[in-house]
Amino acid sequence: MPRIALKVEYHGAPFAGWQRQADQPSVQGAIEAALAKLEPGPHTIAAAGRTDAGVHGLAQVAHCDLQKDWDPFRLSEALNHHLKPLPVAIVDAQRVDDTWHARFSAVERRYLFRILMRRAPATHQAGLVWQVNHALDVDAMQEGANHLLGNHDFTTFRSSICQAASPVKTLDELRVERVQTLWGPEIHFHVRARSFLHNQVRSFVGTLERVGAGGWPPSKVKDVLDACDRSGCGPVCPPQGLYLAGVEYPDNPFSA
Amino acid sequence: MPRIALKVEYHGAPFAGWQRQADQPSVQGAIEAALAKLEPGPHTIAAAGRTDAGVHGLAQVAHCDLQKDWDPFRLSEALNHHLKPLPVAIVDAQRVDDTWHARFSAVERRYLFRILMRRAPATHQAGLVWQVNHALDVDAMQEGANHLLGNHDFTTFRSSICQAASPVKTLDELRVERVQTLWGPEIHFHVRARSFLHNQVRSFVGTLERVGAGGWPPSKVKDVLDACDRSGCGPVCPPQGLYLAGVEYPDNPFSA
Repeated sequence: MPRIALKVEYHGAPFAGWQRQADQPSVQGAIEAALAKLEPGPHTIAAAGRTDAGVHGLAQVAHCDLQKDWDPFRLSEALNHHLKPLPVAIVDAQRVDDTWHARFSAVERRYLFRILMRRAPATHQAGLVWQVNHALDVDAMQEGANHLLGNHDFTTFRSSICQAASPVKTLDELRVERVQTLWGPEIHFHVRARSFLHNQVRSFVGTLERVGAGGWPPSKVKDVLDACDRSGCGPVCPPQGLYLAGVEYPDNPFSA
Repeated sequence: MPRIALKVEYHGAPFAGWQRQADQPSVQGAIEAALAKLEPGPHTIAAAGRTDAGVHGLAQVAHCDLQKDWDPFRLSEALNHHLKPLPVAIVDAQRVDDTWHARFSAVERRYLFRILMRRAPATHQAGLVWQVNHALDVDAMQEGANHLLGNHDFTTFRSSICQAASPVKTLDELRVERVQTLWGPEIHFHVRARSFLHNQVRSFVGTLERVGAGGWPPSKVKDVLDACDRSGCGPVCPPQGLYLAGVEYPDNPFSA
């Protein structure tokens, strides 16, 4: 069965998350339903990261196994046709070996988190950013973020329902950037690691927002990290600013 | 009656345009209804530019006259409260003289038009860009755009229902820029003039898209401009990529 890797963009709002569920709309379910229009199912696709309800995909990666030897581009076009009008788009598709796996072959995940800093409610970007009413100090947030880099027990920043075998992970990047957009000043968090714990990025951002707002000194990030105590984490921030922005593979099937 | 200038951002999709209409939702009607929650109406607000159905506001400017001497910031907060959940936001408000007029005092309007160049359907930016499936040559579009700069009879680029007294206008800027976004490559058209004819920007962009796609040589833009014949215009492009991006005044009441 030919295996094809899919790069997937989606708006998280209408979905209960990536993962297929019996009675709620999911991104996985939407793509599997589109596949069933092309070849008899059932289809089960695997993805690099299971995003939560409301979280967006910019470059989620999944793979599917098909009977017919589809041209990958034609497959992406056919899937996009059947996915309409849902806000899910196959932005790239490439043929991969049968041993290649969207989840298990991945060596790096990248996330982006967007905070929009302004008082007036967002219009065009509603649902695409976490909006805060106050200014945030980028330098203080970066100083706090730097304490999180490297190999740590991230129990403090891990959801109580996380299924990972170990709370120890290596964080390769947590870069805090101020970006001027058409809609006002935004803070972008660029986060990169081989893998993440459940709610880890949203726990980071919610904690660093407290630092940026002046409520926490940057050093407190190190204190709560070292404590390995979930109750020390700042408030977990809402999902709608979070984007799965990219996945890396040793032999990346996508050109860009 | 104290006069207050409002800077307004809105998503064009749910509205039949800026202008109040008896039986269809409009941005003007939404703001006037919110004002009526604060002071008994009827209220009539004036705006710098009447945007069409589907066209967005980033920094539309309007003014209102009120009985009470409102603090402008408190007024903007109260209006934003009553505008919910409509995608209309008062992003700034300032007290102005009774002689100041959002439309008649304006000396410059700026528009932005966004084209997203990619095949896969837009998800997060659906309704916020005009999407084209093919590459566009920025240099060719800029070359074509340069023929439009300056003082001309713009009959070719004017809607048949345009109510302006004269088709002669002065175009101060038409800059074509390629921008890499999270969603793919975009073309941004930055357009600036004292005032515009109805559908002028969308007529420009629809024509320049033909140039960018290779269907028209850049010099044809000059030919159809000189012909002063509406039938020579390229296809008028759809509204959802267009944003009223700013308005200038001799004494601009807004700081930014």
